[in-house]
Amino acid sequence: MSRPSERADAQLLDERSPLAHTRDRFRVPDGVIYLDGNSLGALPVGVPDRLARVVEQEWGDGLIRSWNPLPDGGGDWIGLSKRVAARIAPLIGADPADVHVGDSTSVSLFKAIVAAARLRPDRRVLVVEPTTFPTDGYVAAGVADLLGLELRWCDPADPLAAVDEDVALLALTHVDFRTGAMFDLPGITAGAHARGALVQWDLCHSAGAVPVGLSDADADLAVGCTYKYLNGGPGSPAFTWVNPRLQADARQPITGWMGHASPFAMARDYEPAGGIGHWASGTHPVLALSALDAALEAFEGVTVEQLRAASLSLTDLFLELLDERCVPRWPEIEVVTPRDHARRGSQVSFRHPDAYGLVQALIARGVIGDFRDAGAEPGIARFGFTPLYLRHVDVHDAVDHLVAVLEGEEHLDPAYASRNPVT
Amino acid sequence: MSRPSERADAQLLDERSPLAHTRDRFRVPDGVIYLDGNSLGALPVGVPDRLARVVEQEWGDGLIRSWNPLPDGGGDWIGLSKRVAARIAPLIGADPADVHVGDSTSVSLFKAIVAAARLRPDRRVLVVEPTTFPTDGYVAAGVADLLGLELRWCDPADPLAAVDEDVALLALTHVDFRTGAMFDLPGITAGAHARGALVQWDLCHSAGAVPVGLSDADADLAVGCTYKYLNGGPGSPAFTWVNPRLQADARQPITGWMGHASPFAMARDYEPAGGIGHWASGTHPVLALSALDAALEAFEGVTVEQLRAASLSLTDLFLELLDERCVPRWPEIEVVTPRDHARRGSQVSFRHPDAYGLVQALIARGVIGDFRDAGAEPGIARFGFTPLYLRHVDVHDAVDHLVAVLEGEEHLDPAYASRNPVT
Repeated sequence: MSRPSERADAQLLDERSPLAHTRDRFRVPDGVIYLDGNSLGALPVGVPDRLARVVEQEWGDGLIRSWNPLPDGGGDWIGLSKRVAARIAPLIGADPADVHVGDSTSVSLFKAIVAAARLRPDRRVLVVEPTTFPTDGYVAAGVADLLGLELRWCDPADPLAAVDEDVALLALTHVDFRTGAMFDLPGITAGAHARGALVQWDLCHSAGAVPVGLSDADADLAVGCTYKYLNGGPGSPAFTWVNPRLQADARQPITGWMGHASPFAMARDYEPAGGIGHWASGTHPVLALSALDAALEAFEGVTVEQLRAASLSLTDLFLELLDERCVPRWPEIEVVTPRDHARRGSQVSFRHPDAYGLVQALIARGVIGDFRDAGAEPGIARFGFTPLYLRHVDVHDAVDHLVAVLEGEEHLDPAYASRNPVT
Repeated sequence: MSRPSERADAQLLDERSPLAHTRDRFRVPDGVIYLDGNSLGALPVGVPDRLARVVEQEWGDGLIRSWNPLPDGGGDWIGLSKRVAARIAPLIGADPADVHVGDSTSVSLFKAIVAAARLRPDRRVLVVEPTTFPTDGYVAAGVADLLGLELRWCDPADPLAAVDEDVALLALTHVDFRTGAMFDLPGITAGAHARGALVQWDLCHSAGAVPVGLSDADADLAVGCTYKYLNGGPGSPAFTWVNPRLQADARQPITGWMGHASPFAMARDYEPAGGIGHWASGTHPVLALSALDAALEAFEGVTVEQLRAASLSLTDLFLELLDERCVPRWPEIEVVTPRDHARRGSQVSFRHPDAYGLVQALIARGVIGDFRDAGAEPGIARFGFTPLYLRHVDVHDAVDHLVAVLEGEEHLDPAYASRNPVT
């Protein structure tokens, strides 16, 4: 079965999938095919009860006492960030002791980039890839401005070409948010090291969907968000990983009390906690971390290899169906996601002159993807594939809807002529 | 009735209180007298339902669509931070347009202190008060280290004495977290301005309990937490206020995408949003902000003047009862909170050689305050008075318990000989 264009073929793939059982760990609404888990993951079933318990019993009844373990086994808020870190670590190929979870992705990027720049004080250039998710470039520019460094844009096709002896840090996003193209994390890391530079990896579009292997690659620093493939909920806190080889010297700049060696001693002078501990700044967001902790239970018993195999099977099928049923009839569809497995994240994107209308017409049919503006180029329709809850039949049905939209010219509906500012 | 030592007198004060009705806006557990709302506020009744709706309907059913307004009136996550800011603004004497809500208190302090330092580039000293809540000093020290500035400690009795022509910023906590002593915010602000310096006010122990009056005082920058007297829940996000006079020039350093003038244009280069808008960094924490938004409904129809009058009435009563029933018998009790209304926050603290045991023995009786280490000095027992849900009878009963603890020497229980690290 090289080209499974029948729905029954997709069903067969689902029946054989080792992740067939994990869809029940999520509440995917009836009538929705959710291809936007790369923007906001679906709701894991354990989250509502966990949050209700944390709010009503731990906060409401336990009050301040819940920072300590409660007699009935709840509470222990002080250890919450570490418990969440321990769940994320295996998904990124890291030791739990080297992961911190707390602030927003942008704040976490800031801390990591400043720390990296300070590790190479004799080098004055930060290199950023210009098609990265904007916040990475914005934050790096802010750090450069603050510390009097130079920001240099690299060629996305060859980031290492920009890394010379003046470069402290190369900041890259592992999987491109628009195209789904994936960088060679171990290879680029090794190349930057050979040039004396550090690499900061943004794992927002990687963690929970593709193998990352930070320890194996001997990477330097990494930051990732938790509300995409990790399903932590809107605006859930980001994680940061720092290679233990760097921890003794790396200094993040927001030296708040929760990163102190003895926060409750309330001493006047700052003394950083050891290891990754000093990456904490303020009191951590207990409600958000509790939701994230419950969400990550959906990964229990699942390996990164299983996630990757399922993800590739889903994106392969979507690409095959696009090639078979759409591109021959509507050649204006230009797939921009790499065919090569080694270069593909867990997403498929294509350009189309009416990409915005296409996405809106699909949403009206319950097939939720999203649109990304591409400036002068045709816009991009983006479809994310979360292997824990997406089935091959969803992929098949989504392409049915796409064909129907194109055949019926639903994407040309005048209602889609003006764009919603938040998409 | 100058010394209301009878419970009936306290009941009478409750009946006459204009805030008698607001206690029903909170779930205070049966059998608990909660005098730790200055550490973590009690649960407002509207929070559980709001969070359940946001999680199950907006996240679970609405998914990514909930960033926009939903047809049924929910969603609109993109506007959530501004809606919360509008609720906080009147409590601090500010215009809603000048308030941002988002990161942790420590991250917010970092942004504000960096921005202030950059507004006075020809001055190289940051002044901090050494008995401030530690994170303020730690963060200021981190900024000084990052930017090559000098950190100078001031005399808490006369902070302005340390402010000379080298000082860019005086960072002060409005109400001291240990003693409850309150600085003269307008007077010190004016004094610092006369010396050419800016003032950063930490309002963690002020907002929601005492008048702040930022606009009237022509203050510069202020940061406050929302999980104390604002009852936003454990680790809820902090707020920042910047005087509009400074907004065009003030630049916070964590230039993330949500502070961009057009975040969804996904442009390569950062362009700050106008006004306080560029204070945003990452995607805001929707669950935490939703809980906070619901929590702040408890302030509806309540004025700052009513809060202040009720707070002073409660702390007056506690001080009177301490003076009448405790200090004469146990003179080792040393009240450290100012008697002068103008210098008192919404808290009463006293030193005691066994302050830790006293607090633990009271907690065992359901009277929850907390302990703060004071180094070489006798430790501090802290009692916070949240006027929205505390009654005068609670104050009366709490002192009954304190007397019983001291009479029974319950605070000398060997179980309290070793301290829990998180208190």
